[in-house]
Amino acid sequence: MAAIGVMPEINGLKQKSRRSAVTLILTVLTSSQSILIVWSKRAGKYEYSVTTANFLVEALKCALSLAALVRIWRKDGITDDNRLSTTWDEVKVYPIPAALYLVKNLLQYYIFAYVDAPGYQILKNLNIISTGVLYQIILKRKLTEIQWAAFILLCAGCTTAQLNPSSDHVLQTPLQGWVMAIVMALLSGFAGVYTEAIIKKRPSRNINVQNFWLYVFGMIFNAFAIMTQDFDAVMNDGFFHGYTLITVLMILNHALSGIAVSMVMKYADNIVKVYSTSVAMLLTAVVSVFLFGFHLSLAFFLGSTVVSVAIYLHSTSKARR
Amino acid sequence: MAAIGVMPEINGLKQKSRRSAVTLILTVLTSSQSILIVWSKRAGKYEYSVTTANFLVEALKCALSLAALVRIWRKDGITDDNRLSTTWDEVKVYPIPAALYLVKNLLQYYIFAYVDAPGYQILKNLNIISTGVLYQIILKRKLTEIQWAAFILLCAGCTTAQLNPSSDHVLQTPLQGWVMAIVMALLSGFAGVYTEAIIKKRPSRNINVQNFWLYVFGMIFNAFAIMTQDFDAVMNDGFFHGYTLITVLMILNHALSGIAVSMVMKYADNIVKVYSTSVAMLLTAVVSVFLFGFHLSLAFFLGSTVVSVAIYLHSTSKARR
Repeated sequence: MAAIGVMPEINGLKQKSRRSAVTLILTVLTSSQSILIVWSKRAGKYEYSVTTANFLVEALKCALSLAALVRIWRKDGITDDNRLSTTWDEVKVYPIPAALYLVKNLLQYYIFAYVDAPGYQILKNLNIISTGVLYQIILKRKLTEIQWAAFILLCAGCTTAQLNPSSDHVLQTPLQGWVMAIVMALLSGFAGVYTEAIIKKRPSRNINVQNFWLYVFGMIFNAFAIMTQDFDAVMNDGFFHGYTLITVLMILNHALSGIAVSMVMKYADNIVKVYSTSVAMLLTAVVSVFLFGFHLSLAFFLGSTVVSVAIYLHSTSKARR
Repeated sequence: MAAIGVMPEINGLKQKSRRSAVTLILTVLTSSQSILIVWSKRAGKYEYSVTTANFLVEALKCALSLAALVRIWRKDGITDDNRLSTTWDEVKVYPIPAALYLVKNLLQYYIFAYVDAPGYQILKNLNIISTGVLYQIILKRKLTEIQWAAFILLCAGCTTAQLNPSSDHVLQTPLQGWVMAIVMALLSGFAGVYTEAIIKKRPSRNINVQNFWLYVFGMIFNAFAIMTQDFDAVMNDGFFHGYTLITVLMILNHALSGIAVSMVMKYADNIVKVYSTSVAMLLTAVVSVFLFGFHLSLAFFLGSTVVSVAIYLHSTSKARR
């Protein structure tokens, strides 16, 4: 009886350390992601086709999930939880997040008619609020009042850190721009929360199987994007035209952080993901000071302070539950 | 027995509503203060001597305290708690805050050699932190962890709301400027907390008697300031040279808000005072939009959001104690 009583505690510890590990990995990968993008852009504009790179990211994630599965099959044998074959009922929900992201990415082209790039960066922080709202509604897991306060602070802090002399233009965004920004925030929040719901629906199901199906549909949707957007370029110049070492590193990084995101959704949640990507944003700015001689503004320090307090509040509020 | 049991609750309610009333009055008075200053400056620079106006503020506060005392004496008669005569032991502490403010005001002239006016406005927010630290050390009343988090947010939020395109200059403030800003913040925090300690030392002592002695020393120190700074101007042009209706309104407002500050220290504390003046700062900006056509920046909205969350956290944290 005592042994059974101890079990959940050990499992809880294991879960907690796995949770911390995936969160840390996601933060580091997301930070280096933006830095790699700045690096690849430094040499000029994108030489390669972005859609083919995105397709390769999905393909690589698919391959990595399969490789992990093969290792598990060899070790544990094939069980109900790790077999690849599945029912239509399980698989039919996987295309939904991919479709949501597709609509969001299409919308992105239209929003730039109303908002400039730095303004878009600032409006993107609406994601944080929409994720919190949809997390409560769809996953029916309530954030405490203090956690909500922390979430509003996270959004305000991230926006403050990104303030620049031209930020006030955002306030002059026309109504259409605001509506689109809110719709995009809702779509991306919905996609995130929906993915979490899919992955958590069967907690014992092996994450690599779940990822495999997620990425298969990612490949299909990205193949569709290549055909509609870059078909001529790929036909004339070839699939890998303009690829460099940095492109390969970026693809590798994107694939690994994609897997990390899905791990965070399995072992933690979308709220942790939002905190982790916000911290990654701040880390990127600090690292960029050393790498690219970026200038840190007073607004950055104030925003980072607010984000730090938000993290503190979120964590103490959880510890007290 | 039941009646006695109910008494503290009624007193508690009375205390609470008195506390809310003085806080509200202080916020409104402080907001209109800045607006009156902008108004009087709009016609040009100060036409009157600032030291004589300060002296009149202290004199008016002294007169108002005496008038209130006379009313109380007529109603309740003279008691130990409301008699004006006092021991040297009680009175000897009253010059200390006045002396601290004098040193702080002298320092102010030197800090402008290192910091410009908008930068000074931003560095002044260090007051918030110094008040919190000294409040804990001197009054030995602990802020909870959540209240500390709220206090840091209040400081970051107020600074964010005051950000302007030239704010980043603050980061280039030389070490001497930082040291002086910190010393000034400590002096002003110390003066505030010390005044609270004096006023609260005898809770039953009538506030008007305490104010009377506070303002007597205020008059003495300001008379000294007239003599050292504006002696020639007052001798040549007269004491009331350049006074307008707005000057009189400003003096009236300063006197009333001075009394409100001291009421807040008696019935609430320095923490409430800091929140109240921070909210007044935000209110002033909003009112200025309508009165002077000021422009509200995105930074202002973000700062106001953070300040609002800080107030929310401070109040919920208190309610749970």
